[in-house]
Amino acid sequence: MAKEKKQPRPRAEAPKGFRDYFGAEVTERAEMLDAIARVYRAHGFEALETSAIETVEALGKFLPDVDRPNEGVFAWQEDDDGKWLALRYDMTAPLARVAAQYRNDLPSPYRRYTMGPVWRNEKPGPGRFRQFYQCDADTVGAPSVAADAEICAMLADALEAVGIDRGDYVVRVNNRKVLNGVMEVAGVLDPSDPTKFEAERGTVLRAIDKFDKFGEAGVRALIGEGRMDESGDFTKGAGLSDTQADTVMGFMEAKRADNAATCARLRDLVVGSDLGAEGVAELEQIAQLLDAQGYGPDRIVIDPSVVRGLGYYTGPVFEAELTFEILDEKGRKRQFGSVAGGGRYDDLVKRFTGQAVPATGVSIGVDRLLAALRAKGRLGGTAQGPVVVTVMDRDRMGDYMAMAAQLRAAGIRAEVYLGNPKNFGNQLKYADKRQSPVAIIQGADEAERGVVQVKDLILGAKIAQDATVEEWKSQPAQFEVPIGEMVEKVQEILARYED
Amino acid sequence: MAKEKKQPRPRAEAPKGFRDYFGAEVTERAEMLDAIARVYRAHGFEALETSAIETVEALGKFLPDVDRPNEGVFAWQEDDDGKWLALRYDMTAPLARVAAQYRNDLPSPYRRYTMGPVWRNEKPGPGRFRQFYQCDADTVGAPSVAADAEICAMLADALEAVGIDRGDYVVRVNNRKVLNGVMEVAGVLDPSDPTKFEAERGTVLRAIDKFDKFGEAGVRALIGEGRMDESGDFTKGAGLSDTQADTVMGFMEAKRADNAATCARLRDLVVGSDLGAEGVAELEQIAQLLDAQGYGPDRIVIDPSVVRGLGYYTGPVFEAELTFEILDEKGRKRQFGSVAGGGRYDDLVKRFTGQAVPATGVSIGVDRLLAALRAKGRLGGTAQGPVVVTVMDRDRMGDYMAMAAQLRAAGIRAEVYLGNPKNFGNQLKYADKRQSPVAIIQGADEAERGVVQVKDLILGAKIAQDATVEEWKSQPAQFEVPIGEMVEKVQEILARYED
Repeated sequence: MAKEKKQPRPRAEAPKGFRDYFGAEVTERAEMLDAIARVYRAHGFEALETSAIETVEALGKFLPDVDRPNEGVFAWQEDDDGKWLALRYDMTAPLARVAAQYRNDLPSPYRRYTMGPVWRNEKPGPGRFRQFYQCDADTVGAPSVAADAEICAMLADALEAVGIDRGDYVVRVNNRKVLNGVMEVAGVLDPSDPTKFEAERGTVLRAIDKFDKFGEAGVRALIGEGRMDESGDFTKGAGLSDTQADTVMGFMEAKRADNAATCARLRDLVVGSDLGAEGVAELEQIAQLLDAQGYGPDRIVIDPSVVRGLGYYTGPVFEAELTFEILDEKGRKRQFGSVAGGGRYDDLVKRFTGQAVPATGVSIGVDRLLAALRAKGRLGGTAQGPVVVTVMDRDRMGDYMAMAAQLRAAGIRAEVYLGNPKNFGNQLKYADKRQSPVAIIQGADEAERGVVQVKDLILGAKIAQDATVEEWKSQPAQFEVPIGEMVEKVQEILARYED
Repeated sequence: MAKEKKQPRPRAEAPKGFRDYFGAEVTERAEMLDAIARVYRAHGFEALETSAIETVEALGKFLPDVDRPNEGVFAWQEDDDGKWLALRYDMTAPLARVAAQYRNDLPSPYRRYTMGPVWRNEKPGPGRFRQFYQCDADTVGAPSVAADAEICAMLADALEAVGIDRGDYVVRVNNRKVLNGVMEVAGVLDPSDPTKFEAERGTVLRAIDKFDKFGEAGVRALIGEGRMDESGDFTKGAGLSDTQADTVMGFMEAKRADNAATCARLRDLVVGSDLGAEGVAELEQIAQLLDAQGYGPDRIVIDPSVVRGLGYYTGPVFEAELTFEILDEKGRKRQFGSVAGGGRYDDLVKRFTGQAVPATGVSIGVDRLLAALRAKGRLGGTAQGPVVVTVMDRDRMGDYMAMAAQLRAAGIRAEVYLGNPKNFGNQLKYADKRQSPVAIIQGADEAERGVVQVKDLILGAKIAQDATVEEWKSQPAQFEVPIGEMVEKVQEILARYED
């Protein structure tokens, strides 16, 4: 008997860290991606879609906080040649590969946008998934900060295009060159040997990127001796002295009332560093270009506390933050935070070709942006199901299907009930679950007389809940109409519930 | 010195069997998916998006021609618990998992559509990629063949919605139950013990699915002793006798002048098999339901030569074929062939829950359909690039960016040239590569006078190619207009080149 033991049934579960998206979750995201794509295209960006899979060597290792090889990505070996392949973890690494591979064919500068899922092999957490959407725009081959300014302006336009009101977001701009200038002044960057203090600078970068999370004291600890968290775990710091730490923290807190004052303060902080001075000049130029197009500091502002975690940025960096408050899962008010970010990365294409290619771009975290709009009540409103043509007589399916086709021909979503028609109550329960506004009913008697019953399910539900007997009688929710007037009657009912 | 040897540069190449899609290739596919989704939604189907990754056990092994475990899929082990994960190879296996996982929450019947890439770990070939798009619609929980008829009708609607004319396609319908009835009559199916002759039936199924490729003689060989191909490789056959093979081939060739005659012929072939008779009755019912809605045999026809390779189908199967001829890579005329297929699979959800759940659906091969439309010259026409605002004076980038913004505000795609502006000829070459219809030019002189030059690049290129000196003079391709009239002038030029 034991020999005949069956294989156990597979578990009906998405792998941990992955989820399914239903109905409006899918269509609302598609609409958001469309709206963003329209803004990108209007700015002259062209679509690119690379495959989800790249060679591990082409992807490189640019994830923040990841040191071990292949960590952070889903990777596997090819059967035949043993090459390692992996799922992309962002859209920038594949773009660098494309820019190198097609460098003789693409226009230069090359503006491209792309949208799709990326995958991170990380520990999943609440609201933290291992597959999520990114929607990127990048310009490859444009050295001027005009390209960075364009990306920032376009980001502001994209946010407004998807329904974030002006005033509800801010694009904050900083420059890695200024930060490096500050590092030079603090003595942890030696322009004559950039490899010195590399580890320390990495620690400083990651520390100040966590300002929101750990606060000033936490960041000070991380750039100094180190930080003990609540559980007693100790993270080794960058080892900067108090004076050095003061310089770095001064940079973080250099934001002033307007862009000109912020730039002036930054200029003071980088005195003695050529790189730092160059960075400040770039920020001034970005502010001026944006100003010329009417993007004031209510939309885009210079803010030295933005650093972005990724190691590959070499110049301007930017981040879009939603400024309104939402309630978190524990009912506490908090700022929604970052929904997009990017910056200039002049060395990524060089990995392939040996030649430096200037590039800058932005990535919008579409799933976070959708969550923000839902938290604001701007999405997920009134999803309406299709009209359901019920089945009174299973031998007349052809007629019912023809009725549904007639409704569709008039632009109305419609379907025939395809479950077991025996219990009519189940058909109405189904229509209810489908959020159908209208049901069509035609039994043998109605068919003979050439009429159908058109049932207003929304009104019907309302009456069932609230109405007195008198109201019930005076407000019929079901109408008998000649078959030739079915479409018109349904349109009339649907018009009541529009917007 | 050897110690300082650098790591070799990564190769800038997509992994073999994968490709990149640029510009119109991406947007045309997106438009096609949108058009199909609109048809699916009109029929009451709801969107579903599962993640690309599933557990290997949930995916199961349903690829045709694949016997070894994990063959055909990209799979890897989780770091922590050693579980095998894999990329989906179709959209049906994830749907079965979802239908089982959410069986208490989803409406029943559940109509859903989904679209996105799937991955096959197969040997790539010319035009054969390891990532491609599918666009599926399925109904879960509807036992009646009305669900199959609906899918077939919707498939015809979808093909017309994306631009395939009526007459240029046909949806062919068959029924596995009829085929199994024929197998029973031929003596390779024993209804009292369905496990008997399973291998033989699998071989027969795969053989007749290759009728188009191998012809009648090839199929006869494969269901008989075996087939030797041109290279001398021998494929073992199902071992059927000539009489048995006659029965099977009779089924393949049972198509008659109309659906009624075809069904009558099939009824003869399955005499003695209850299952076969049931299958013929289902086909008759499908034909009748489609007829009632006006889908005649010019669009949807019963054709016993359709079997579909996948092993999991249990009832009606269908395939959409484009009937026009195209030229293949060697310039030979050939039929374009299949672009979509599907059928009824009543056992897939049962794998998870132990309970049979009737299901039926269709998958459209979007990339093949796009290729067909391109071969027909229906796509890839006149992609037009953005207006390019050129840079005469790099200190006035803000002004140029403001001009582009002004054009965009009027709904015109526009961008500023972001390369090195020194060589103006390069800017015009860039505009040419971008297929720009118009360039905007404003030097210091024009700026002072408050004007811009609007250059019609399409006319300019035409004149440069064809014109006599007289024509050149009488047809100016460049106009000086006050800055306030720039948008209007550009609109006027663009209007010339519309449609």
